[in-house]
Amino acid sequence: MGPHPAVAAIRLAVRRVLHDVLTEHSTPALPAAGTTEDPAADGLRRPPLVLVACSGGADSMALASALAFEARKLSVRAGGITVDHGLQAGSDLRAAEVAARLGAMNLDPVEAVAVTVGRDGGPEAAARDARYAALDEAAERLGAAAVLLGHTRDDQAETVLLGLARGSGIRSLSGMAAVTGTRDRYRRPFLQLDRQTARKACMVQSLPVWDDPMNADPAYTRSRLRQEGLPALEKSLGKGVVEALARTAQLCRDDADALDSWAADADPAVRDEAGLLECAKLYALPPAVRRRVLRRAAIAEGAPAGSLFARHVEELDRLITGWRGQGAINLPGRVVARRQGGRLVIRQG
Amino acid sequence: MGPHPAVAAIRLAVRRVLHDVLTEHSTPALPAAGTTEDPAADGLRRPPLVLVACSGGADSMALASALAFEARKLSVRAGGITVDHGLQAGSDLRAAEVAARLGAMNLDPVEAVAVTVGRDGGPEAAARDARYAALDEAAERLGAAAVLLGHTRDDQAETVLLGLARGSGIRSLSGMAAVTGTRDRYRRPFLQLDRQTARKACMVQSLPVWDDPMNADPAYTRSRLRQEGLPALEKSLGKGVVEALARTAQLCRDDADALDSWAADADPAVRDEAGLLECAKLYALPPAVRRRVLRRAAIAEGAPAGSLFARHVEELDRLITGWRGQGAINLPGRVVARRQGGRLVIRQG
Repeated sequence: MGPHPAVAAIRLAVRRVLHDVLTEHSTPALPAAGTTEDPAADGLRRPPLVLVACSGGADSMALASALAFEARKLSVRAGGITVDHGLQAGSDLRAAEVAARLGAMNLDPVEAVAVTVGRDGGPEAAARDARYAALDEAAERLGAAAVLLGHTRDDQAETVLLGLARGSGIRSLSGMAAVTGTRDRYRRPFLQLDRQTARKACMVQSLPVWDDPMNADPAYTRSRLRQEGLPALEKSLGKGVVEALARTAQLCRDDADALDSWAADADPAVRDEAGLLECAKLYALPPAVRRRVLRRAAIAEGAPAGSLFARHVEELDRLITGWRGQGAINLPGRVVARRQGGRLVIRQG
Repeated sequence: MGPHPAVAAIRLAVRRVLHDVLTEHSTPALPAAGTTEDPAADGLRRPPLVLVACSGGADSMALASALAFEARKLSVRAGGITVDHGLQAGSDLRAAEVAARLGAMNLDPVEAVAVTVGRDGGPEAAARDARYAALDEAAERLGAAAVLLGHTRDDQAETVLLGLARGSGIRSLSGMAAVTGTRDRYRRPFLQLDRQTARKACMVQSLPVWDDPMNADPAYTRSRLRQEGLPALEKSLGKGVVEALARTAQLCRDDADALDSWAADADPAVRDEAGLLECAKLYALPPAVRRRVLRRAAIAEGAPAGSLFARHVEELDRLITGWRGQGAINLPGRVVARRQGGRLVIRQG
């Protein structure tokens, strides 16, 4: 008798990602120092280390269990990291407990890493920044080939809706990537899998899971979306909404990539010999491409990408398409844009 | 003392559109037959007729009142059409009453047009098809330069969410166009205006409005979205959601237009001398462009655009990117696609 369908589903998802990691890892590399004397070592490499980032919640506990299972069958070493954000009393004990559970799955190495969460960008963004910094550090130190993240299709749907609320275009609708980070470090095997499957897989494997009270705290936008917004949307639009949002993310990602590459190609063609943007040539571009060229130009001059909103780019665009002698435009990062002699001049102010 | 801000807002929105219509109308045309004898008539043209499509609800009643007001100040004739869908008892009396109200605003001509609603595509789509057919017919018969529609920013936000639920990409996220139809007939002056402003404008002008019970009937997806889905989303994400959705629509429309034009340009370059699509050249395109080329090709061979879903195009795409000898693919409209000798052959089956 095979495993429960939910367990089979999480294992298959992890197996696919491990195959990708192994394929990428199998490209020839130099033998490690000190091993050249041993002729047998020439063709040998240590199996790659794959870490799971685990909060102790159902999604990442399911992920850890599937990684532990699949790594035994493949030439992969499996380890785990849990991050103690220090935001709740007893979070250190909680982290130690999660680490013990990972160890009990025979993951090795296993670490509980404590971080200090700052305040930049709000509580959710600050926690995320601290978490990824700790994961990056651990991955480097342990020489991990990949770090698996437990985000599910439901998380993806929430991310798309959060992007929609910004109203800043298709890049923010494209959600989370299946593969991302330095050297494609982060992988999300469960991005096509629903949360219910992960939860079910924990249940049938008798894995104890921890429901983070922050996930249900209405102080957080994502929690409100999860508890109220998305269920109400499903009630109005039908059960397929989560899947539709996830598919929208993938389509938007591909569209955004294509338009970004178009803008990168168009950029040199709309500049004069001095490298200044020519308004007439910008005018002739499709609006979607022109706005991306303008955005790139502002970022290249030092405007921080995260603070440069659609309305800034629209205002820049009006120097091209709605020119009536308006003055200089102030952009984030003390960047100033003005139209001068048929050129668009974007500079640090 | 000027008008109430809500009234000023609806008038400004209509005035802008009338200016556009007048500008486009002022391009020289031949004098009407029978007037060539009169030298004075050479330079004279009858002012253009602009119709408002009015259901009697707040949005379109506000629109009618603003059209009546602005047309008096500009060289525009203003008329009105109300469509009797015949879906509720007494709808003919309702339509006659709306027509009488439009007449009382000095709109002329005013017509109540009865239609028969079919069943194709569900009740909402069938009613819409019948309505636009009637509006088209009336516009042609009366020689109208434009037909104004009362859709607001809230309607636009709902349309974007309905598109999102289809999960079929950015074209369905681009909502309703401000200008559309044969000879740019249809205009939506209120697309940037919220429903509350239209409602307020009716109130302060003491315009009686009719709340269509269908708008609150939970049998209709749009009604559920309006009554429950969108308010819950606003509660989760904040009050700016409607505006963000409307801005998303505009950005997606521009992005979709740019990518469509890229696909149209790429099309001839990926075909051989016989006009067949070459798989190797398709493979080299960015995925977003390739999928659009494939979609165009299927439609050109007779696949109905409305029945060709993202999953069909994905399956087509796998003939290019995931080729493992799979057989022919059946598409809507009895169109069949197969890979043959490095070519993608799409034909009526």
